[in-house]
Amino acid sequence: MTAEQFADRHIGPVPADERRMLEAVGYGSIDELMDAAIPEVIRWHGTLDLPEPATEAEAIAELRALAGRNTVAVSMIGLGYHGTHTPAVIRRNVLENPAWYTAYTPYQPEISQGRLEALLNFQTMVTDLTGLATANASMLDEGTAAAEAMTLARRASKSKSPVYVVDADTLPQTVAVITSRAEPLGIDVRVVDTERDELPGEFFGLHLQYPGASGAVRDHAGLVEAAHAAGALVTVAADLLALTLLRPPGEIGVDIAAGTTQRFGVPMGFGGPHAGYLAVRSGLERMLPGRLVGVSKDADGNPAYRLALQTREQHIRREKATSNICTAQVLLAVMAGMYAVYHGPDGLRAIATRTHGMAARLAAGLRAGGVRVADVAFFDTVTATVPGRAAEVVAAAAQRNVNLRLVDADRVGIACDETTTGAHLAAVWAAFGVDGVDGDVDAGLPRALARSSDFLTHPVFRSHHSETAMLRYLRRLADFDYALDRGMIPLGSCTMKLNATTEMEAISWAEFAHVHPFAPAEQTAGYRELIGQLEGWLAEVTGYDAVSVQPNAGSQGELAGLLAIRAYHRDRGEGHRDVCLIPSSAHGTNAASAVMAGMRVVVVGCDADGNVDLVDLDAKIDKHRDALAAIMVTYPSTHGVYETGIAQLCAKVHDAGGQVYVDGANLNALVGFAKPGKFGADVSHLNLHKTFCIPHGGGGPGVGPVAVRAHLAPFLPGDPLGAHADARPAISAAKYGSAGILPIPWAYLRMMGAPGLTRATGVAVLAANYVAARLRNHFPVLYAGNKGLVAHECILDLRPLTKATGVSVDDVAKRLIDYGFHAPTMSFPVAGTLMVEPTESEDLAELDRFCEAMIAIRAEIDKVGSGAWLAGDNPLANAPHTAAMLTGDEWSHGYPRSVAGYPAGVDRMAKYWPPVRRIDGAYGDRNLVCSCPAPEAFED
Amino acid sequence: MTAEQFADRHIGPVPADERRMLEAVGYGSIDELMDAAIPEVIRWHGTLDLPEPATEAEAIAELRALAGRNTVAVSMIGLGYHGTHTPAVIRRNVLENPAWYTAYTPYQPEISQGRLEALLNFQTMVTDLTGLATANASMLDEGTAAAEAMTLARRASKSKSPVYVVDADTLPQTVAVITSRAEPLGIDVRVVDTERDELPGEFFGLHLQYPGASGAVRDHAGLVEAAHAAGALVTVAADLLALTLLRPPGEIGVDIAAGTTQRFGVPMGFGGPHAGYLAVRSGLERMLPGRLVGVSKDADGNPAYRLALQTREQHIRREKATSNICTAQVLLAVMAGMYAVYHGPDGLRAIATRTHGMAARLAAGLRAGGVRVADVAFFDTVTATVPGRAAEVVAAAAQRNVNLRLVDADRVGIACDETTTGAHLAAVWAAFGVDGVDGDVDAGLPRALARSSDFLTHPVFRSHHSETAMLRYLRRLADFDYALDRGMIPLGSCTMKLNATTEMEAISWAEFAHVHPFAPAEQTAGYRELIGQLEGWLAEVTGYDAVSVQPNAGSQGELAGLLAIRAYHRDRGEGHRDVCLIPSSAHGTNAASAVMAGMRVVVVGCDADGNVDLVDLDAKIDKHRDALAAIMVTYPSTHGVYETGIAQLCAKVHDAGGQVYVDGANLNALVGFAKPGKFGADVSHLNLHKTFCIPHGGGGPGVGPVAVRAHLAPFLPGDPLGAHADARPAISAAKYGSAGILPIPWAYLRMMGAPGLTRATGVAVLAANYVAARLRNHFPVLYAGNKGLVAHECILDLRPLTKATGVSVDDVAKRLIDYGFHAPTMSFPVAGTLMVEPTESEDLAELDRFCEAMIAIRAEIDKVGSGAWLAGDNPLANAPHTAAMLTGDEWSHGYPRSVAGYPAGVDRMAKYWPPVRRIDGAYGDRNLVCSCPAPEAFED
Repeated sequence: MTAEQFADRHIGPVPADERRMLEAVGYGSIDELMDAAIPEVIRWHGTLDLPEPATEAEAIAELRALAGRNTVAVSMIGLGYHGTHTPAVIRRNVLENPAWYTAYTPYQPEISQGRLEALLNFQTMVTDLTGLATANASMLDEGTAAAEAMTLARRASKSKSPVYVVDADTLPQTVAVITSRAEPLGIDVRVVDTERDELPGEFFGLHLQYPGASGAVRDHAGLVEAAHAAGALVTVAADLLALTLLRPPGEIGVDIAAGTTQRFGVPMGFGGPHAGYLAVRSGLERMLPGRLVGVSKDADGNPAYRLALQTREQHIRREKATSNICTAQVLLAVMAGMYAVYHGPDGLRAIATRTHGMAARLAAGLRAGGVRVADVAFFDTVTATVPGRAAEVVAAAAQRNVNLRLVDADRVGIACDETTTGAHLAAVWAAFGVDGVDGDVDAGLPRALARSSDFLTHPVFRSHHSETAMLRYLRRLADFDYALDRGMIPLGSCTMKLNATTEMEAISWAEFAHVHPFAPAEQTAGYRELIGQLEGWLAEVTGYDAVSVQPNAGSQGELAGLLAIRAYHRDRGEGHRDVCLIPSSAHGTNAASAVMAGMRVVVVGCDADGNVDLVDLDAKIDKHRDALAAIMVTYPSTHGVYETGIAQLCAKVHDAGGQVYVDGANLNALVGFAKPGKFGADVSHLNLHKTFCIPHGGGGPGVGPVAVRAHLAPFLPGDPLGAHADARPAISAAKYGSAGILPIPWAYLRMMGAPGLTRATGVAVLAANYVAARLRNHFPVLYAGNKGLVAHECILDLRPLTKATGVSVDDVAKRLIDYGFHAPTMSFPVAGTLMVEPTESEDLAELDRFCEAMIAIRAEIDKVGSGAWLAGDNPLANAPHTAAMLTGDEWSHGYPRSVAGYPAGVDRMAKYWPPVRRIDGAYGDRNLVCSCPAPEAFED
Repeated sequence: MTAEQFADRHIGPVPADERRMLEAVGYGSIDELMDAAIPEVIRWHGTLDLPEPATEAEAIAELRALAGRNTVAVSMIGLGYHGTHTPAVIRRNVLENPAWYTAYTPYQPEISQGRLEALLNFQTMVTDLTGLATANASMLDEGTAAAEAMTLARRASKSKSPVYVVDADTLPQTVAVITSRAEPLGIDVRVVDTERDELPGEFFGLHLQYPGASGAVRDHAGLVEAAHAAGALVTVAADLLALTLLRPPGEIGVDIAAGTTQRFGVPMGFGGPHAGYLAVRSGLERMLPGRLVGVSKDADGNPAYRLALQTREQHIRREKATSNICTAQVLLAVMAGMYAVYHGPDGLRAIATRTHGMAARLAAGLRAGGVRVADVAFFDTVTATVPGRAAEVVAAAAQRNVNLRLVDADRVGIACDETTTGAHLAAVWAAFGVDGVDGDVDAGLPRALARSSDFLTHPVFRSHHSETAMLRYLRRLADFDYALDRGMIPLGSCTMKLNATTEMEAISWAEFAHVHPFAPAEQTAGYRELIGQLEGWLAEVTGYDAVSVQPNAGSQGELAGLLAIRAYHRDRGEGHRDVCLIPSSAHGTNAASAVMAGMRVVVVGCDADGNVDLVDLDAKIDKHRDALAAIMVTYPSTHGVYETGIAQLCAKVHDAGGQVYVDGANLNALVGFAKPGKFGADVSHLNLHKTFCIPHGGGGPGVGPVAVRAHLAPFLPGDPLGAHADARPAISAAKYGSAGILPIPWAYLRMMGAPGLTRATGVAVLAANYVAARLRNHFPVLYAGNKGLVAHECILDLRPLTKATGVSVDDVAKRLIDYGFHAPTMSFPVAGTLMVEPTESEDLAELDRFCEAMIAIRAEIDKVGSGAWLAGDNPLANAPHTAAMLTGDEWSHGYPRSVAGYPAGVDRMAKYWPPVRRIDGAYGDRNLVCSCPAPEAFED
């Protein structure tokens, strides 16, 4: 081993480990194994055309050089993206802390109480500020949140009208996303200047921006009343900071609020990621898309958090789903929620007041200099009219390192934020050629619109205002949780591998963090070069011709890919093709995305081995030949198998005029060995948070680029600010989606290079086959492909054991917590099974620790089966065990405490203790509580 | 509260808390309280002349500007400071992780097992690489380590000679520190070219550098033999990286090795901090100065780590001490040890081989171009001779952004390191005007000097080579420990307050981290401006006229201050003044420092109230009037009291011709309210790691600037590279000591400003008096000053309770762990007591949690006293309780498990579980083991 090769740090097993693992699997080398596992028909034998792997120091140096080509200007562009001070204690202890960023989605709530509490803070913050009843745990951005609000309104409205009214003072990128989403769903979007023009006679929903894109603060009460009279629902896209001073939408009967929490301490990042939000009035909560944290109780009756109403989620509802969102923006939502915790209501109000004061002073200075400023109330943004001179003023400001918004030839928009200083105002005034004014200006907001209601009244928003208190709160919550920094998270289909520190570092740099998505191109050369390289490398790895990084989650990549197929057919005059074939084993998201792309889902069956049933495929193709738009398959299959029929499948669909969509979820089993773009697929989305090392962040951010062959390239996502022009869809609010975290996959690819990536794939497949080989005698391995080999994951079938003993897959998952593990994927793709994906980053010691825990659990199951332990009272049924339970004075269980708490023996390994016992999810769904419970709830 | 004021983040109590605390103490305002507490005779009523407080964002912007005035050049100067790659996983998860940097010195070993294990790794690394038996847990730097080696040699040598021989190829700054230390001790340092010249006939010790400052690698076996024949001990200052390839000193009979571990992943930081090391052969281990980690066992017989042989420490030995070192460089030692863990023996060897290869290629290229390179074996450094052209070559290299060492007019030194690249060699060649050579050069090291022995054979150095494994190891160790990120550490005299993230950030920036201490002045303008401002602000705060930041620990500041006094007397022809008065209550370090400064210690008694006994003071002054050099007092006193006699005391000493040294340990009780330099003191050292927010790092780094009135300013520390010239002493190896962390106190002072600093002092005094008021009825408060008030800390007297019940101060300290606290200072300054210093950063909730724990413990003591609990078997005697113990199947104690484990009740507060039970320190001292124990030791 040389210290220089990053791949040696990324890949867990050292050569000696690899030899032992190969021996267990029965192969002489990884090459032999891969030759056996991967069907020759898809195998690609070249060497990836990527730069020679860089060392960590070299990669950082290159990133520094790219960063140096970006300009960090003072951003006063606004339009939903604002300068903000990330409190250093939050940046260091959340964004830069692996305990937070390497955590998985909180599907196992007992080991996720910390981030669930943080998300509950976020939800409480959103509901308090908007004045609505229920908020979800974040959306991907404001644009997609607004689009989800539209479809929610359609579901909830009694109006049969297809018309959705969008106020003209809405952010242009939001209009673009809404329009792109509406079209395949048959929704008729009408942009209306609601100040001047009449509302249409019939419409199902109304979207308002508050304050408007122009900065105007208008009283929307009359519009809300009018919309309700028409049977429509009203969404307000509201700025949460403004709502500390302004009457919240919930107080005038608004049904839905949508928006972003970016300015709550989350850097702009050239467009993302940051947490969008969505909140609804009482009565709509069960229709909310996305993830929702709720309060329930554990086996001891103590309050405990978990994801609520999961039956709404797209992976359950599949083709009946009304939204495909899956990943949220957890890490960023945690940051925004903590920003509110740290500042508290008084602090937020002070920030808002100061920001407003700056805008007021700015406007006064402009007016004093004779510049016309729109005569309307505003919070932080003013629009100045300088007939014919707007471009000149914007350029003059840029000369002074300040970016303004060029609205049109005559108007300039200027947005203040918490980072605005007197010096910034002076620069703006100078750009306009005016002198400005000194001292504070009391502009005042209209009294009728001033907020009178309290907010953030829960103690959590009043207890952590010193840095010491904040630091400890963050540590305490992190300690509740199990993330990759404690041990393996062997989640099938989710690829929880190393998120290396060097990959993470650049995202905190000002040159990447503090760039506005609409900054002038000459300020973003470094970003665009990085993105261009990344898109090129991803195309090389996947064998496609073009890549767009705009989709900011896998689900959005799916939608973008399907919309590209749809547009392709329409472009060829085959717009009638609208059937999307989806195998029964597919991710539920696939079906949901197809519906959102305006397609009809037709399910194709699987055979006994879990492979797509080619006979049924033929039948379905025959039946839908003329309407066939596409097939969506995952490869290797969701069963973790390299299906040999994939090439045949592609040919059949192509022959019928359809396109082939290969879901890139399992790309970690292909990189360097097979390229979907070369074995028959037309389009894929990639999950950069799986194969390409963006951390899961506890449930987001995700990034889901879409990759296509050349014939689909013209239909890739367009610039949301110019989407109308070229008819390309706007998938996210920002052109490059979550650009701020793209340095992560860039660094991964740059440091691994072709040899590292290829070796990683081989070791990932080896690790899965090693686990399968070690556990096969204890749990049946459900599916296998060539020569009995699995791909990068394996499914352990618990159903026979469950049938025989009553011990469920849930019991095993929870018992693994006692052994110090996060459970594998439960009951996907097959109910009653566990799907294990070890990835290449786990070393042999950890793989063995997992296998030994599973073998020990098998022995425990047998004790239940034999009657040695009671069916209802055994370590599996009672798992997980908390320290409080095990150190209680009474012990009435039929097994000893030591077996409960230290099943693998006591050692110096820091034992992970979950803070709660098993959680009753159904109780919480029946008694829905989605904001912070009162502290008394936690009293003994 | 406005979000803008950093002071509101630093200070824990909010205004409402302050009011409640004032009420409990019986004062209407903090001003009233301070008026009552501080004797008017010392009170200073001005406003500190400091810049207006900056916000966090402003301070960071100013630091960025200062950083921008430093130049990060490629450093090939060498001389003990080398470029190194800090592994990102170590930087982020140790240096930037509050769980590591806010920890205290591991005096409470049960809650410090993580950093103790990390230090044991460090010690094992040093002993393995040097081939010696025992290494301590780090020294302040190479220079002071070498000086400590000298005094150790003197103690251990049978020779009565005062002569200490230092080889001429020793680092110049090391020679300066050795010489400065030797002079007051009457040691006669002789610098000898041991290659050419004879050794003196008699000498007690010999210091060699390996490789030499010139780069030369010489066989020292003959010299070692000769020295031993003379009864002298031999110290080798060895480069640990070189020792991976070279025969280690222990294998040729060397007695002591000293040096630095900087190049093991610790940035140069313009001179520090990094961990020096000191290792000795078998037989000398009990004479080692500094802190030593050893293996012992806990109450269950399990292996457990703690500081060994603490009776050697200066705070116990006082005037019999032979060293004053106290603080080590724990945080940096942890980093260096983890660097070895991460790379392992093969990785280190690869780095050394590559480094050597670069040097060999460099030399070959120079020779090929006709440049004369010394014809001697070398590892990483070559000395080139270019008659009359050296300055020109160095300048030409600087033009190419490469710093070389200007040895003299004819010679240039060039050092390679792990960051050296082919491009760097090309730049050097170009500076010399030669073409260089291509490809690898096989220079080879002399076969006789090649290392044949194994090293780092313990599994810890072979198990954590993937980043995933390393990350988990760091998390696991951090989880063993209790630091400020979990809760209060109310350590009297140690001021464990907030180390704010914003204060910490700049130290990771390349512009501060990667600057060589001997870089040309034009490259370090930013550093020097920052240091100048900091020194000025510290002078303003303390009322002195001049400050030097060179001392890199409080103990070194003491020595520097006393040496200034000594030099002052000598300068005035009163060199006979050598008596230093020290009150019996003083820190033990004071006496040790006085001895090291060549003074005789005379103890002055204290009265019943703990104040200096002015009658005894008069008597001692009378007795030693002519010989009186100084008095050293701490203010407020080590008893935590503002003594009213301080002004009188100063006058009496001054009248007798002595100087007054006020130990600045308790400055946190004075800032903004009194200035030692104005109330009678002549000199103080400050502890920047106490009052000025440098984190304790688990036991270092410390920084101990010395502050003096104008008449002592000429005697402040000098430049170690020019110390001989101006006769000022070299206290540390680098001119500005631990410059790399000075941005921390700079940021603290910059953001607090006069109002923040003053309020912090008031709140610190309020908090101590609040704790005293709440606990007075449960534990007697031992000393008080004006109106029954304490200063910033209070002493709780447990002696009556101990006498009545047998429950010891130790029992209470360990029981506090069960309650989730780090114990206060134990048995200092009075045996059998606890000294509590809450600091201003703890909010009321945490202060109350502590008081309630202490009150509950008092009730527990009463249960022992009443016989309700057995004397030998109660929760106090058995504390701390581990999770393993409490979840065991048997429970035979006379109190319930729940009382043991959750004495304050179960809540969602993440319970801290210590990994071991109470540790038997004496067992470990009898059976001294100071390197990593075999893994089998931990088996059940």
